[in-house]
Amino acid sequence: MKEYQKSKLNRVKRGQKRAVYDVEKINTILDAGFIGFVSYIHEGKAISLPMAYGRNSDKIYLHSSQTNRMLLSLLDAGEMSMTVMHLDALVLARSGLHHSVNYRSVTLFGSVKKIETPKEKEAALYCFMEHMMKGRWDDIRAMKAEELDRTLVVEMTIETASAKIRDVGVNDEPEDEFLPVWAGLVPLKQIALPPISDKKLREDIKVPNHVIEYYNMHK
Amino acid sequence: MKEYQKSKLNRVKRGQKRAVYDVEKINTILDAGFIGFVSYIHEGKAISLPMAYGRNSDKIYLHSSQTNRMLLSLLDAGEMSMTVMHLDALVLARSGLHHSVNYRSVTLFGSVKKIETPKEKEAALYCFMEHMMKGRWDDIRAMKAEELDRTLVVEMTIETASAKIRDVGVNDEPEDEFLPVWAGLVPLKQIALPPISDKKLREDIKVPNHVIEYYNMHK
Repeated sequence: MKEYQKSKLNRVKRGQKRAVYDVEKINTILDAGFIGFVSYIHEGKAISLPMAYGRNSDKIYLHSSQTNRMLLSLLDAGEMSMTVMHLDALVLARSGLHHSVNYRSVTLFGSVKKIETPKEKEAALYCFMEHMMKGRWDDIRAMKAEELDRTLVVEMTIETASAKIRDVGVNDEPEDEFLPVWAGLVPLKQIALPPISDKKLREDIKVPNHVIEYYNMHK
Repeated sequence: MKEYQKSKLNRVKRGQKRAVYDVEKINTILDAGFIGFVSYIHEGKAISLPMAYGRNSDKIYLHSSQTNRMLLSLLDAGEMSMTVMHLDALVLARSGLHHSVNYRSVTLFGSVKKIETPKEKEAALYCFMEHMMKGRWDDIRAMKAEELDRTLVVEMTIETASAKIRDVGVNDEPEDEFLPVWAGLVPLKQIALPPISDKKLREDIKVPNHVIEYYNMHK
């Protein structure tokens, strides 16, 4: 089991029994989603914005237009952090204090660099697209050189990380368990609804297998 | 229509046609969820962590234990920002460049203060619980004085904010519309699954109306 080394930066302070440093488990949480909250400092204030990401090994890829304030600011800083969370259940206890949620969250810390060559950019965008929807890249129109030029691609190398997972039931005070109060979980889940074809779609084109597979895995 | 005044801090830089400053629309996005990504600076680095929140008018309530590093750091700074996002669809275009997602996101900026009196703390926690699940607070065991003591409650006053909404279809280049490539949306939605009673639940206790109503609204 490969683990991120615990340091002052990534050590989980609260709820240490929920802390996870295992690289494979952290990657599984990252691969279960594709939206991360990227943090940066703008004029002395911390801000975070949601961005789509792709992962390949210890690399995270982000992209945007060449003028994106946040990505340019991350490149200036040379480092970034990103947080990903999946909400799995409401945990409804008998007392207010023990209400909670089940979730899987990861916070990554690492260095960032700009991807410079069109070839490397294209490889990063392929990784990004495969992460969002496996099999789509090969079905779409190829990137044009000027589109690659207009795109800013940032590569983060994950240097350290930690995850927190809560996946258990209600944890009330023993003396509260006999109260006439319902307690339990309400599981929450993100699902996909059936694909909706573009209004301008050519009539001869059917929903492709990669989209049907995505829908079947997420419905 | 009441709007947040545009300033250097909250003005949306990219995709201005998607920008929203309307207070009521921003509140609707905040009320559609209860997990926000709170940003703070720790040893010169920007970090964001997910937290549950409640909203009442222009106030946002967060709570944790008295020793929570992030909340103490926000109180030190006297200000915070929080971002909330709902993911609504994958937007699958004919070219890589026009792939996108439909979403509603809000970023809030404001001042923070600690709630000091037990009475005000309890009112904030009531707001918090009502925001997560309407009607639950009145059904659970009342807070004890020592539980209120152990709880750190932070009140943010929203001073400025902006939202971004993308809720349209595929936006391909006109010359790509005749390509033999499927394009369209895959809607995404967070749903609730049927409630699961705690294993230790007294046998005479049924799932209460507030939980059934929540499930019916989110299934």
